[in-house]
Amino acid sequence: MNTFGNLLKITSFGESHGKAIGVVIDGVPAGLKIDEGFIFEELTKRKPGQSKITTQRNEADEPIIVSGVFENKTIGAPITILISNNDSKTKDYKSIKDIYRPSHADFTYQKKYEIRDYRGGGRSSARITAGWVAAGAIAKLFLKNFNIEVKAYTKQVYNIVLKTPYTQLNLSVSDKNNIKCPDEKIANEMENAIEEARKNGDSLGGIISCIVENCPAGLGEPVFDKLNAQIAKAVFSINAVKAIQFGDGFNIVNFKGSQINDEFIMKNNKIRTLSNHSGGIQGGISNGETIYFETAFKPVSTIFKPQKTLKTNNETVIFKPEGRHDPCVLPRAVPIVEAMTALVIADFVLLSKTNKM
Amino acid sequence: MNTFGNLLKITSFGESHGKAIGVVIDGVPAGLKIDEGFIFEELTKRKPGQSKITTQRNEADEPIIVSGVFENKTIGAPITILISNNDSKTKDYKSIKDIYRPSHADFTYQKKYEIRDYRGGGRSSARITAGWVAAGAIAKLFLKNFNIEVKAYTKQVYNIVLKTPYTQLNLSVSDKNNIKCPDEKIANEMENAIEEARKNGDSLGGIISCIVENCPAGLGEPVFDKLNAQIAKAVFSINAVKAIQFGDGFNIVNFKGSQINDEFIMKNNKIRTLSNHSGGIQGGISNGETIYFETAFKPVSTIFKPQKTLKTNNETVIFKPEGRHDPCVLPRAVPIVEAMTALVIADFVLLSKTNKM
Amino acid sequence: MNTFGNLLKITSFGESHGKAIGVVIDGVPAGLKIDEGFIFEELTKRKPGQSKITTQRNEADEPIIVSGVFENKTIGAPITILISNNDSKTKDYKSIKDIYRPSHADFTYQKKYEIRDYRGGGRSSARITAGWVAAGAIAKLFLKNFNIEVKAYTKQVYNIVLKTPYTQLNLSVSDKNNIKCPDEKIANEMENAIEEARKNGDSLGGIISCIVENCPAGLGEPVFDKLNAQIAKAVFSINAVKAIQFGDGFNIVNFKGSQINDEFIMKNNKIRTLSNHSGGIQGGISNGETIYFETAFKPVSTIFKPQKTLKTNNETVIFKPEGRHDPCVLPRAVPIVEAMTALVIADFVLLSKTNKM
Amino acid sequence: MNTFGNLLKITSFGESHGKAIGVVIDGVPAGLKIDEGFIFEELTKRKPGQSKITTQRNEADEPIIVSGVFENKTIGAPITILISNNDSKTKDYKSIKDIYRPSHADFTYQKKYEIRDYRGGGRSSARITAGWVAAGAIAKLFLKNFNIEVKAYTKQVYNIVLKTPYTQLNLSVSDKNNIKCPDEKIANEMENAIEEARKNGDSLGGIISCIVENCPAGLGEPVFDKLNAQIAKAVFSINAVKAIQFGDGFNIVNFKGSQINDEFIMKNNKIRTLSNHSGGIQGGISNGETIYFETAFKPVSTIFKPQKTLKTNNETVIFKPEGRHDPCVLPRAVPIVEAMTALVIADFVLLSKTNKM
Repeated sequence: MNTFGNLLKITSFGESHGKAIGVVIDGVPAGLKIDEGFIFEELTKRKPGQSKITTQRNEADEPIIVSGVFENKTIGAPITILISNNDSKTKDYKSIKDIYRPSHADFTYQKKYEIRDYRGGGRSSARITAGWVAAGAIAKLFLKNFNIEVKAYTKQVYNIVLKTPYTQLNLSVSDKNNIKCPDEKIANEMENAIEEARKNGDSLGGIISCIVENCPAGLGEPVFDKLNAQIAKAVFSINAVKAIQFGDGFNIVNFKGSQINDEFIMKNNKIRTLSNHSGGIQGGISNGETIYFETAFKPVSTIFKPQKTLKTNNETVIFKPEGRHDPCVLPRAVPIVEAMTALVIADFVLLSKTNKM
Repeated sequence: MNTFGNLLKITSFGESHGKAIGVVIDGVPAGLKIDEGFIFEELTKRKPGQSKITTQRNEADEPIIVSGVFENKTIGAPITILISNNDSKTKDYKSIKDIYRPSHADFTYQKKYEIRDYRGGGRSSARITAGWVAAGAIAKLFLKNFNIEVKAYTKQVYNIVLKTPYTQLNLSVSDKNNIKCPDEKIANEMENAIEEARKNGDSLGGIISCIVENCPAGLGEPVFDKLNAQIAKAVFSINAVKAIQFGDGFNIVNFKGSQINDEFIMKNNKIRTLSNHSGGIQGGISNGETIYFETAFKPVSTIFKPQKTLKTNNETVIFKPEGRHDPCVLPRAVPIVEAMTALVIADFVLLSKTNKM
Repeated sequence: MNTFGNLLKITSFGESHGKAIGVVIDGVPAGLKIDEGFIFEELTKRKPGQSKITTQRNEADEPIIVSGVFENKTIGAPITILISNNDSKTKDYKSIKDIYRPSHADFTYQKKYEIRDYRGGGRSSARITAGWVAAGAIAKLFLKNFNIEVKAYTKQVYNIVLKTPYTQLNLSVSDKNNIKCPDEKIANEMENAIEEARKNGDSLGGIISCIVENCPAGLGEPVFDKLNAQIAKAVFSINAVKAIQFGDGFNIVNFKGSQINDEFIMKNNKIRTLSNHSGGIQGGISNGETIYFETAFKPVSTIFKPQKTLKTNNETVIFKPEGRHDPCVLPRAVPIVEAMTALVIADFVLLSKTNKM
Repeated sequence: MNTFGNLLKITSFGESHGKAIGVVIDGVPAGLKIDEGFIFEELTKRKPGQSKITTQRNEADEPIIVSGVFENKTIGAPITILISNNDSKTKDYKSIKDIYRPSHADFTYQKKYEIRDYRGGGRSSARITAGWVAAGAIAKLFLKNFNIEVKAYTKQVYNIVLKTPYTQLNLSVSDKNNIKCPDEKIANEMENAIEEARKNGDSLGGIISCIVENCPAGLGEPVFDKLNAQIAKAVFSINAVKAIQFGDGFNIVNFKGSQINDEFIMKNNKIRTLSNHSGGIQGGISNGETIYFETAFKPVSTIFKPQKTLKTNNETVIFKPEGRHDPCVLPRAVPIVEAMTALVIADFVLLSKTNKM
């Protein structure tokens, strides 16, 4: 159950404090040019220790390509990428060995497996998403050949909301600040809010928006692998995600059909829709408009205030963690959302080659 | 891509106006008692023509079990259930043969396959979910052996909202009205709103809530088949779904970690959580609390007001449909949400038998 | 586990004496012309009651296409084909309800499931392969677009062997006799041997040869879905198969490398091999030569001589069956071998569209 | 397509001369004790350079467990094992860069991918099976908990045949000689034959027998994942395999049904069969008898005699390889056959936990 995808498949492995984490990417067509620098750049976007508002764990997060690439090109063989765990301070975690941290996966893993690697959350750690970002980088390289671009950004942190719709934003701005929000002023407010939460030993959640530009019509498979269904599954794989909505999302219920149907029109000799309430997907298949969705991340479960919880022997305990943690995952989650989305789109591009005689 | 599930798998087939629609359910353990009456009851809940607010298409929707059941018990072989399409008025659809109906799947199917069965939406019709409901009925029969119960209800239609939380509702009330809302008064308001929309040739959307009671801790598979990820995929397979949220959902971002963490406590000698902001799932695995999620359905795309759209030859046309359609899918979608959820839970119950030595 | 294939998938369902048996074929590209007459012809080749040497069970075996075909073309939706069980004489089987027939699947099914449909072998009956032949017919229609042809024939029945290599045979002759052997004289001898075995209440096995002509180089997926690996799995799915060999097969061990390597040469401006000891597959991938394999079927387990065996209550019993059975499956197995092979090749043709940038 | 298995899945990666080869093993139940020494021992059995009759490539083949094992126990997370490529003499292979070696996968890979890692066969090298042996070691550790044992041995090399049936052999003898043949005298003859072939620059093939002891009745899934079907697929994944037969195999066609049916009898209060022509599998499901099969390996394609072949530019060339190669793969293939078989059996043990209510 650690494999995701149909033709383009990733297999994730590794624990927070094991030797390494990594990913096997299978199904990448042969002959794709691999730019290792680009993979490293993508990993840098989710790397810990980037700024004062992220965890101070110090990892180089250098991707080691173990297989599948020969003379800078894919050869049709599975691509394995390893990322070492160097700065894994195991001693930090002895104190949580016998504790079920509130809203963490300690308890559920213990119930499921009756054994767990408690160090840094073990397999349930978000550290393993570094492998997904590496895989997503390869998916992005693949998608570039089709001119398809996946771009996510931080839309909301706690009560600070970027209200401007994506159509009116210059998304490249989000690459220039720690928050990955395409509005410098709001990014600044968000950063302050996170910094304040950090000082108070508290944590914040928020919303990430993601768009896919130039996605051709016809991607997505009826009826159980609808494009939105598969993106939803991909995004819910990411730690702390609690919700997702496409196009108008939950808000669409406040309108009548006559208000939110997307009328077909001709534009530059192509069939397009006048509005995009559907978020680029109709009947589970892309319609050629911009794909648009939002996803909510809960506040980080690790807070530095004392909390009541249970020990594994059922005793009540007051718990206050040590170690290093992000007070808000949003900035580092942006590249993960992009990666998982890019993997889904690339998979459907491959599948679409087999739909018609 | 018409198969869903890991060990308990359903394969869906059929088009709105073909000979029949149906489902193959594979992986059901041998020796499960099959109550055909129960399957029929479940199908009756989503059957067309139940009341004036649903489509007047007249289908008996009697399930025919073709295989896999012997002397009223499963034998470990795939169970195939057929449901005939009797009242398929093909003539109603000649008029839409060459039209891309706004916000329907006509255009995306045409782009994907370059051919489509235009009659009643063909494969993209919600009629095929009758098979899923039949499969879900078998999943429910399986889950009864573990005392697990899946229950959904209509929470919102357009701007009429049932604000009472599920913990304070008598959910069995929802079986007694056309809307499947567990509050008679609000159900009445919803019905009136739908009736009014119908009269105006318009359509409404809404929100369905779903809860799973008595789900044991430990269901859900890291890292890509998280319980919420798989439920999300299952629910997004349903026509018209635009959003899903678990536990506090999108609203969780308005709180700080210290406000929404679920503290572990002992209760009746069992480890429980004091609050349930997580919606019964932590780290993608059930924690033994009630699983709770909400999902939004857009207003039905078919409205009986004239709309501008395109013909397949790119000409603009004013379109006003004939035929029979629900002005609001919510009432009939409730059993579909239950069915897809039950299938996911049953699949994970089976998988959980293989997690530990 | 009743689904086979990667992109082109078949899901098999049904028991010998249930309402119907059938198949769902998913992944067939849209726009393939479906010739129902051809499907019926293929089914007729494996139909019971064709001649005195096959079982006298009388089934029309008319395929009913329930879904996935619109105006004689595939639409990208799953194709379901039903075949009714009309002449299922259930009373014949009451006598075997409590008996484990020697070398049948009665005992193993009982151990596996603790329940079984004993009528005619239930799910373990070769009757279900009718669905596979129907699916294989669609695969053959698909392959015709690529000029690829799959052809099997009876090479050996008991001790009567057709020694002529396939390269020197006119394979179309096999369609003209009951045995499906491309040498009329040997076919005649085989038929006599089967008839004699039938009279004696005994049964015979044999060997089927299968070739694939015009298969392009490059089909087959490293490393676990090698073309030979997947064909082997497909063929071992067929009842009574005990062995398979490709190219020179077991006999290759009697030679040295210098004797059996296939030298590359230019022929008509194409890269070919001088010999074909490899049977058209090297490194698990087709090399453009004729694919060639042989598979052994054991003598039918049902014989009409008294045999000692056990009852389900562990008592010893002398068993002599009633009912209708083939004394030799070879003639009816030829179209099944073709069908399963055609399905594998078609699946790999689809996969090959995604191997390269 | 580099993943094999249903619940217990292995994903293979790596090329002969890349950084490392390896495997991810997913689905191993939590709480299995891992004996790293045992994995190393198993790898040593297929290691190159063991004796003068195997390739002199010098690899330590030390397995590095990267993930999934914590304090010597599995935790339910994927287990990744890396094996470095240290002694990869790339320079040896420059000479074959532009040549299609006879009966190798050079040509088919080139046709499939239009690019290939020519060094040592790249992805098509048998070196990657080291990862499978490591995974198989873990499957064996799992099976020990059920007292199931998988044991293979060399039965034939070229024309030297061990005729004694497995029931009369002391299989542990095979661990004591280079050939892994359980008869010292015949092992000696085989070794001499291989040594002579090596001196002549030629190569030999042969037959490996494999048995599974104490396999419980009920393993194997109808209808496409029959136990023999899945073992066949697993074994055909191994380089150079050309044939497989179960029980009496091809020879069964020389007998009548009355001669080869396996009569059920009571033995030590258990249902057993008097004979075992079926090789322990009936209807695709284990019947509790010893599982028995044989598989043929062709002579190694690399020979040190000059051969005519083509260059990638279609020119004819006389080819005589350099480098290091086994003149006969049989001895090193024995642990690979065991590993793939153990993986299949372990997978079906897990699946069998979900067959019944």
